[in-house]
Amino acid sequence: MTTVAAYAAPAAKAPLERTTIERRATGEFDVLIDIKYAGICHSDIHQAHDGWGGSIFPLVPGHEITGIVTEAGPGVTRHRVGDRVGVGCMVDSCRECENCLAGHEQYCLRGNTATYNAVDRNGDVTYGGYSTHIVVDENFVVRIPDGLSLDVAAPLLCAGITTYSPLRHWNAGPGKKVAVIGLGGLGHMAVKTAHALGAEVTVLSQSLRKKDDGLRLGADHYYATGDEATFEQLRGTFDLIVSTVSAPLDLGAFLGMLKTDGALVNVGAPEEPVSLNLFSLLGGRKTLAGSAIGGIAETQEMLDFCAERGLGSEIEVIGASQINEAYDRVLASDVRYRFVIDVATI
Amino acid sequence: MTTVAAYAAPAAKAPLERTTIERRATGEFDVLIDIKYAGICHSDIHQAHDGWGGSIFPLVPGHEITGIVTEAGPGVTRHRVGDRVGVGCMVDSCRECENCLAGHEQYCLRGNTATYNAVDRNGDVTYGGYSTHIVVDENFVVRIPDGLSLDVAAPLLCAGITTYSPLRHWNAGPGKKVAVIGLGGLGHMAVKTAHALGAEVTVLSQSLRKKDDGLRLGADHYYATGDEATFEQLRGTFDLIVSTVSAPLDLGAFLGMLKTDGALVNVGAPEEPVSLNLFSLLGGRKTLAGSAIGGIAETQEMLDFCAERGLGSEIEVIGASQINEAYDRVLASDVRYRFVIDVATI
Repeated sequence: MTTVAAYAAPAAKAPLERTTIERRATGEFDVLIDIKYAGICHSDIHQAHDGWGGSIFPLVPGHEITGIVTEAGPGVTRHRVGDRVGVGCMVDSCRECENCLAGHEQYCLRGNTATYNAVDRNGDVTYGGYSTHIVVDENFVVRIPDGLSLDVAAPLLCAGITTYSPLRHWNAGPGKKVAVIGLGGLGHMAVKTAHALGAEVTVLSQSLRKKDDGLRLGADHYYATGDEATFEQLRGTFDLIVSTVSAPLDLGAFLGMLKTDGALVNVGAPEEPVSLNLFSLLGGRKTLAGSAIGGIAETQEMLDFCAERGLGSEIEVIGASQINEAYDRVLASDVRYRFVIDVATI
Repeated sequence: MTTVAAYAAPAAKAPLERTTIERRATGEFDVLIDIKYAGICHSDIHQAHDGWGGSIFPLVPGHEITGIVTEAGPGVTRHRVGDRVGVGCMVDSCRECENCLAGHEQYCLRGNTATYNAVDRNGDVTYGGYSTHIVVDENFVVRIPDGLSLDVAAPLLCAGITTYSPLRHWNAGPGKKVAVIGLGGLGHMAVKTAHALGAEVTVLSQSLRKKDDGLRLGADHYYATGDEATFEQLRGTFDLIVSTVSAPLDLGAFLGMLKTDGALVNVGAPEEPVSLNLFSLLGGRKTLAGSAIGGIAETQEMLDFCAERGLGSEIEVIGASQINEAYDRVLASDVRYRFVIDVATI
């Protein structure tokens, strides 16, 4: 066990504060990572505020982690001391079920082990990336390619893979019209990735406030969903719509913008149930689907793709003392497009 | 114009009664069909009762039509006098949009022309199969293969294709576990078809009342959804669930029975919106979809498949004077599994 510095929420909705936590000794198949950057994801705030229930306090958020391997267990073969690596939303899974064996550890049938706010197979509570070090099984650690700097790479571990996975699964690419609902942490990566994959990209945002940004990031078109006319104008347009927002949407209106056989895929989701008229799916054989992060191999593929295409997240680097202020700004949608904590300041 | 006998609803919810209607003269590309049988579909009742609004009275229902060609226009090449033919839910479409050109006339971007209760390209109201004759463009007429008798073939034109199309599209077949919600007119064809396609078939019905029938029709398993334990027992089981019911379902509970990447496809749908927690789609990348009938070529393919496998609908043949009584029995779920009108009795 090693005592390391961290920022934790001591209780639901209490401000995060500096503290210390224990990390396990580096096991046979573990690597010890000296964390350099940790992105702030909206779900960090949800869990620090116990918005989904069941949060375990003190809670150390952070599942967009990049850093350097400083120690490797004797059985480790995938990473070496000095390697630039990343850790995303999970640090373990059963590794035996059909989903794990298929590389879909995120859908582990026994439940994967979340990077923080979970209990691991040893019975220990997991603590996330708002801390100076983390010990992770090598199989849940990915390589950060040389072409990506560690700060802009951090948000790729959640925001990047969460949008890359459905874009690939639903075949975003040349000749496909893809819309992205919401231009936030996830949305801006969805725009960059869909554009890099060769799709024609449209942003559907509440207003035109971020239009210049959207076009700069790779969108071909930008529409305000606050304007009713948008839905009529774009009727039957898209092969794929990726919704990155957690606000409840008028799903029927968005489904109306799909082509026949089109899919509306949710990667964000409101906590409350939404209302849906199923007839909006029947006419045009439409799909309403969901997608959660991505598998480990797919996360590596995404990082390699981003490095090759020069895609990183748009970030604002902050010191640890600004975490609480950053939370307020995320809740006010005042971030373009991801806060990343410089972990050296913890 | 020719005057022919028919059964029509004179007004919303009024009993159907014998009357006469006008059929257009057989045009260059039309065939005149001497109707032998017409199935009674639940949607006939919806529209005769103006349950969806906008019904045009007098209304002659019927879109599960089989009969014999008695006249063919000079330009007709696909059918000949004496041919055994069928007409389903649509009698025309734009034939120019990308969906029509792809053989998906049911999703015509300008809207297909329904077999009854619609206005055709000449401005005439369409009248359905509860009548002695119908005139239809040859392109919307399919061939009934010799192996199928005209009575059991009639319901295939709606109930058959409505279930065949999604089963094929979502790859029901060997190695796949398929569930069918509801064992009615559509459901019993879904069970027969999924079984013939080689899938392992489970019926999910409110009670076990029709269990013996379900197993006889080809189901491997039969569960009551009235029993809460069913949902826990079948958690994560199915690749595909086809819902044939129009009652509002607890979608989250049914989505829980899907495997990762599974699809719940609605071919029936409640008139009222349903409530859905989108998180039930995210965990396991699940799909909620809809499907409407099928294209003309696909309908022919379905009929050929049914003839080859000896699949017909389970029917109860009635005389025209029993139509109103049959409607009451359909609403009471007292039919195994489709009423078919012997049109000679009109």
